[in-house]
Amino acid sequence: MTTVAVVGASGYVGGELLRLLFRHPKVRVSAVTSEQSAGKPVQSLFPNLVGPELLCEALDPDRIATRADAIFLALPHTKSAGPAQRFLKAGRKVIDLSADFRLKNAQAYATWYQTTHPCPDLLKIAVYGLPELHRDAIRSATLVATPGCYPTAAVLSLAPLVAHRLLSEPVIIDAKSGISGAGRTPALPYHFPEANESIEAYKLGAHRHIPEIEQELGMTVSFTPYLVPMTRGILSTAYVHLPQARTTEQLTALYRDFYKNEPFVRVLDPGQSPNPLHTRGANLCEVSAFADPRSGTATLMAALDNLVKGAAGQAIQAFNILQGWDETLGLQDSGLYP
Amino acid sequence: MTTVAVVGASGYVGGELLRLLFRHPKVRVSAVTSEQSAGKPVQSLFPNLVGPELLCEALDPDRIATRADAIFLALPHTKSAGPAQRFLKAGRKVIDLSADFRLKNAQAYATWYQTTHPCPDLLKIAVYGLPELHRDAIRSATLVATPGCYPTAAVLSLAPLVAHRLLSEPVIIDAKSGISGAGRTPALPYHFPEANESIEAYKLGAHRHIPEIEQELGMTVSFTPYLVPMTRGILSTAYVHLPQARTTEQLTALYRDFYKNEPFVRVLDPGQSPNPLHTRGANLCEVSAFADPRSGTATLMAALDNLVKGAAGQAIQAFNILQGWDETLGLQDSGLYP
Amino acid sequence: MTTVAVVGASGYVGGELLRLLFRHPKVRVSAVTSEQSAGKPVQSLFPNLVGPELLCEALDPDRIATRADAIFLALPHTKSAGPAQRFLKAGRKVIDLSADFRLKNAQAYATWYQTTHPCPDLLKIAVYGLPELHRDAIRSATLVATPGCYPTAAVLSLAPLVAHRLLSEPVIIDAKSGISGAGRTPALPYHFPEANESIEAYKLGAHRHIPEIEQELGMTVSFTPYLVPMTRGILSTAYVHLPQARTTEQLTALYRDFYKNEPFVRVLDPGQSPNPLHTRGANLCEVSAFADPRSGTATLMAALDNLVKGAAGQAIQAFNILQGWDETLGLQDSGLYP
Amino acid sequence: MTTVAVVGASGYVGGELLRLLFRHPKVRVSAVTSEQSAGKPVQSLFPNLVGPELLCEALDPDRIATRADAIFLALPHTKSAGPAQRFLKAGRKVIDLSADFRLKNAQAYATWYQTTHPCPDLLKIAVYGLPELHRDAIRSATLVATPGCYPTAAVLSLAPLVAHRLLSEPVIIDAKSGISGAGRTPALPYHFPEANESIEAYKLGAHRHIPEIEQELGMTVSFTPYLVPMTRGILSTAYVHLPQARTTEQLTALYRDFYKNEPFVRVLDPGQSPNPLHTRGANLCEVSAFADPRSGTATLMAALDNLVKGAAGQAIQAFNILQGWDETLGLQDSGLYP
Repeated sequence: MTTVAVVGASGYVGGELLRLLFRHPKVRVSAVTSEQSAGKPVQSLFPNLVGPELLCEALDPDRIATRADAIFLALPHTKSAGPAQRFLKAGRKVIDLSADFRLKNAQAYATWYQTTHPCPDLLKIAVYGLPELHRDAIRSATLVATPGCYPTAAVLSLAPLVAHRLLSEPVIIDAKSGISGAGRTPALPYHFPEANESIEAYKLGAHRHIPEIEQELGMTVSFTPYLVPMTRGILSTAYVHLPQARTTEQLTALYRDFYKNEPFVRVLDPGQSPNPLHTRGANLCEVSAFADPRSGTATLMAALDNLVKGAAGQAIQAFNILQGWDETLGLQDSGLYP
Repeated sequence: MTTVAVVGASGYVGGELLRLLFRHPKVRVSAVTSEQSAGKPVQSLFPNLVGPELLCEALDPDRIATRADAIFLALPHTKSAGPAQRFLKAGRKVIDLSADFRLKNAQAYATWYQTTHPCPDLLKIAVYGLPELHRDAIRSATLVATPGCYPTAAVLSLAPLVAHRLLSEPVIIDAKSGISGAGRTPALPYHFPEANESIEAYKLGAHRHIPEIEQELGMTVSFTPYLVPMTRGILSTAYVHLPQARTTEQLTALYRDFYKNEPFVRVLDPGQSPNPLHTRGANLCEVSAFADPRSGTATLMAALDNLVKGAAGQAIQAFNILQGWDETLGLQDSGLYP
Repeated sequence: MTTVAVVGASGYVGGELLRLLFRHPKVRVSAVTSEQSAGKPVQSLFPNLVGPELLCEALDPDRIATRADAIFLALPHTKSAGPAQRFLKAGRKVIDLSADFRLKNAQAYATWYQTTHPCPDLLKIAVYGLPELHRDAIRSATLVATPGCYPTAAVLSLAPLVAHRLLSEPVIIDAKSGISGAGRTPALPYHFPEANESIEAYKLGAHRHIPEIEQELGMTVSFTPYLVPMTRGILSTAYVHLPQARTTEQLTALYRDFYKNEPFVRVLDPGQSPNPLHTRGANLCEVSAFADPRSGTATLMAALDNLVKGAAGQAIQAFNILQGWDETLGLQDSGLYP
Repeated sequence: MTTVAVVGASGYVGGELLRLLFRHPKVRVSAVTSEQSAGKPVQSLFPNLVGPELLCEALDPDRIATRADAIFLALPHTKSAGPAQRFLKAGRKVIDLSADFRLKNAQAYATWYQTTHPCPDLLKIAVYGLPELHRDAIRSATLVATPGCYPTAAVLSLAPLVAHRLLSEPVIIDAKSGISGAGRTPALPYHFPEANESIEAYKLGAHRHIPEIEQELGMTVSFTPYLVPMTRGILSTAYVHLPQARTTEQLTALYRDFYKNEPFVRVLDPGQSPNPLHTRGANLCEVSAFADPRSGTATLMAALDNLVKGAAGQAIQAFNILQGWDETLGLQDSGLYP
C-alpha cells in the first residue's frame, strides 16, 4: 500500500479526499492534518467517514514526510506553497488542490491573488492536473496542481473546440455552482435562509478562476459565476461563435471523438443536457454540444460534482496516473441519484 | 368597485392573481373559473387565500361576462384565444396571461405554437403588456397580452441598450428559473427528488418565449433557459458586445436614466447583483449592468418573481394603467424576505 | 397616524416587523435602530423593503422616545429589559419580542436564561401577548411580551384541551422549525451545505421556550425542537392521552368552538394536516386535532410562519388590540403560496 | 460470482439496488426488469449508474430464474407475492423489498393492504429481514422480507428497550422522511413547489408501516409520518415512559451494549443527535437515547438513508448473511457528506 497524507482536512475538499482515499485499493491514509481539530478523530470533522481510526494532527511537514509517500494538500490559496516546497524537498510527491501552482505565470498569480508568489521556480515543474489535457505530463510530475472546479468544467466543455482551432473570442462562460463550492466557513451569503430560494452572480469579471481558464484555453473569456441553492454541483455553459457552421450532430461527433478514450467524460446525445445531479459523488463530467442555427451560436455545457471531478476525485485521478496505476482506481463507483 | 373575473384559477398564475386582486383597493373578484374544481371554494385550490367566499365555476364566457367588467385569462397557451374573443365581443376588457396574443405575427405563432392562430385579426388590436415599453398603448387597449416571465426579465435587462441603439447581435441570454415557472402539473422533471440538487437547461434554441423576446428587441437571440431548485424567481443574464467601450458606471447611469420614472424597476448600484430572493411576492424587477473591460463584454442582468412581475403582478399593473388608475394600486407591498 | 419605533431591526424579526408595519394603515414607522447599520438605509438590511426612506440609527432610548408613541423591541434575549424599562419610564408603550418579560417567575428566568432578571418588578405588569388567551389583558397593557415562535404553535395546539380540563401529563411536543428561527447570524449548523438535506433535533430537554410553554399550559412538557431544511415555518405536534375517549370529529368540534371568533386561527377539517407552507408571510395558525382509536393518543398539530404569527405579526396583532383598533389591521393579506 | 436479478428497477429502490450491487465484489447483476423501459439500457432509468451494459427486460419469472441465483424484488406492494412464489418454486432465493411478506399475520395484511394475501403459506417461511433482530433466521432463509424504511428506523431506536423489557405503551413515534420515500411517481404533494418549504404529516394512524412496527415491538404504537423537503433520509423519534428512572448515560450504555457487534448501527454519545445527512448513501443507522428528568420521558432517535439502510442496503446486508458472506461486503463505503 502506498501511504498518503491529507493536509488540511477540515474543509469540504479535505473531507472528500478522505472519503475517496479510504476506499482506494492501493492507498493507505497515514496522516491527516487539521489545525483546529488536532488530537480529534477525523470522524469529528466529517460524520460520514467510515475508515481507519485516525487522529488529526497539526501540520508539521517534516514529521509527516516521514510517514507518507505522497501528500495531498487541501489548504487555502496562498497557504499551500510553503508546505508544498518542504514536502518536495523531502522527496515526496505533492498533489496540491489549492491554486498556488496552477498558473504558469508568477505575475498573473501576483495580480489575481494579490501576493508575490513565494517560490516561482516551482511553477516551472508544476503540472496542471487536468488529465484529459495533460496526462503525459502528470505521469512524470512530482508536483501536480489540481484545477479549480469551475476551470475543470469550463475547459472540458471547450477543449475539443480548442484542439480543432474552432474556438475564437469572445468566449462567454456562465457557470452555476452549488454552495459547497464556497467552502465550509459560515458567512451570510451561505446562511441557509439567505442562500435558499436564491440565485446570484458574484465577482463579475474578477473571479480567481479566470486566469486558469484563460491559460488553458489560450484566450480571454467573460466568466460569470453564480451560487444556486444546492449543496454540490457545477453546471458551466459556454457560448461561442464558430468560424464555420456546424450542426449539433457534427459537434457532438467531434466531442465524442475527442473524449473517446476518457473514462470520466461522458458526451451526451444531441438533445440531452448535462446535470450535476447525474454526477453527485462521482468522478464524472457530463459534456454536451449544441449548435443553434437561428443565432449562429454554439452552446457547450459541462456538469460535474465540484468536490469530486472538480477537486478531490480529479486529484486522485491525477495521482493514479502519476503512480502508473489504472487511472480509475478507487473512482469507479456510481454516484448517488437522486 | 370594478368587478373582475379570473378565468383558469387552478394554476399558479391564477392563484397569484387571486392573492393580489383580493387586496386591490378598487377591485372586487366576482367570478373564478376552474374546470376541475367547479363548485369548490377557491381556498380548496390555494390554501393561502384569504378573501371573499367564492366558489369556482366552469367557464361559460357569456355568463361570466354579465358579472365582470374585466377578465383576467390565466389559461394554457392555445386555450385562451377562443374565450378572449367571446369576452371582447361582449364588450369586456381582457387581460390575457397566455401567449395567444403576444406575437404580432400570426405566422410566427403558427411556427412556435404549432397551430394556426384562430383569430389573427385580434393580434392587431392586442397590446403587448409590458408597461415599461408600451404604457401608452396599454392605456387605450381592450386586449392586453401579458408578457411571459422570461421575456419580461430579458427585455427589461436590455431595453435601455435598444433605446440607445447600443444593442447588436449576437445577443446571448442565459436565464434561470424556479420550478413554479413550469406550472402546477406534476411531471418527473419537477418531482422533488429529481428537481432538488439539480440544475438543467431545457428546450435549447426552441423555447416558446424566444419569438417574444426577439419581437421586443428587434433582433435574433440565443436563449437558454434552466430550471434551478427554488420555487419562485427568474434571473436572466444577457451577454452582448457594445459598439463602443462603456464603463459599468456609464451603463448604470444610462439604465438609471431610462428607468427613472418606473415604479417597479430597481437599477442596482455598480457591483451589486440582482437576486430573485429580493423580489419574492413583489411586483419588482431588479436590473444591473456590468462592463467587463477585459473581455469587452457587457453583462446585463434582471431578477424578478416569475409569478408576480413575470405574470400576475404585471397583469394587474397593466390593468391599473388601462383603467386610468395609479399604476401601483394593490402592488406596493414589500416582498417576503427571506 | 401612530408613530412607532422598531428597535433592533437587523435580525429577521426586525425585518418582518418593518415589512408588516410599512403596510399598516394606522402606523408610521418613525425610527429604526441597528447598531451595526447605523447611518444606512433600512433597505441595506433587507432588500425586499418598500417603504419610507429611513436611516438606521444607534439605540438611544431617550431620543427615540421623543419620536415614537410605541416601541417594538426586537433585541436579543437579556438585551431587551434595560431599554424596555427606559421606554416605559418615558411613558411609551412597549411591545417586546424578546423573552425578557415572558416568564412570570423571575427565578425561572434566572434558571433558563442563566442571568438574574434586571427588573423583576416589570414582570408583574408585563402581559403575555398571545391574543387568543390574553386578549383582555393586552387591551390595557403597557408592556406586552410577545410569545416565542414554538410556544405560539404549541400552546395554540393545546389551549382548547386546557380550557376543557382534558389535558394531563405527560404532554409530548415534537416541533419542527425552518432555519430562519435560528436567526440571521451565520454558524455551521445553518451553513447551507450543512442545513440542506438535513434534519436534526437540538437542545433536548433544554430549549428556553420550555418554561413559556409550561407556564401557559400549567404543566410539565417533554419538548423536542428540530431544524428542517426550509427557510420559514413551524409545525408543532403534541401527543397526549385524553381522560376519556373522543373521536376526531368531537375534538375538531371542540377546537372549532374554542377558536370560533379568532381571526387568525384556522381549525382544519378532520383528515387535513397543517402545513407552514399554507401560512407563509401571513398572520395565521393552522390547527388540527386527531384522535387515534388504536393507540388512545390524541395528536394535536399547529403550523405557522415563525416570523409572522410566531413573532412580528403576532406583535402587531397585540399592538392593534392594545390600541383599541380592529385586531386584523395590516394583517389581512393572503400569504405567499407556493 | 453469484448472479442476481433486480426485478422492478425503475423505482428509486431498484436504482439503489443497482448502484450498490454493481460495486459488490461477489455479485454479478445478470438481469434487470422494468416493464416501461424494456429494451432500454439501465442508464436510461438512472443516469448515475456506472456498471455493466445491461438492457432492461419485461418480467418473465421463469426466464429470469434460469439466469440468476437469487432475486431482488423491488415491486410495488401486492405485486410482489406472485413473482416471489414462482421464483421460490424455481429454487431461487428471494429478497423481497415490498411489504408482501413482512407481516406474519395474513389477516393483518388483509386489513392494512385491503386485499387477501395470495399465498399465506409463504408467510410462515418468510423471514423479516432486519439483521439486528433476526440474523440467525436470515442465515437459513429462502425468502427474506426486507423491512420498510420507517420500521427500520423506529424498531432500531427501540429494540434495546424491548430486549430489556423497558418498553411499555403508549409508544409514540414521530417520523420525518425525505420525499424519495414516496417513490418516483410524480404527484402534486411531491411536485417541487408544493414539497419545498413544506412539512406535513400524512396518513395519521393509518400508515401501512404501523403493523410492521407493532409486530416487531410487540405492542401498539401511535405513529405519525411526515414529509420534509429533502431528497433522502428518515429521522424517527420515539417517546416513551420508562418503568424506572434512567439517566441518558445509562440508556446510552444499554444501547451501546445491545448494538456492540453491529457493523451498521452507530450509537451516538450523550448530547449528540442523529441526522440522516450523516448517513446519505451509506448502510448506516445512527441511534441516540435521551432521558429527560423533567418530564420523565425517554426520547429515542434513529436516522438513516431510507433508500439504503431503509431499503436496498439492508436487502444486500441480509443477502450477504444468507449467502454466508461477510455481512458488510459491498456496504463499507463512507456516505456522501455534505
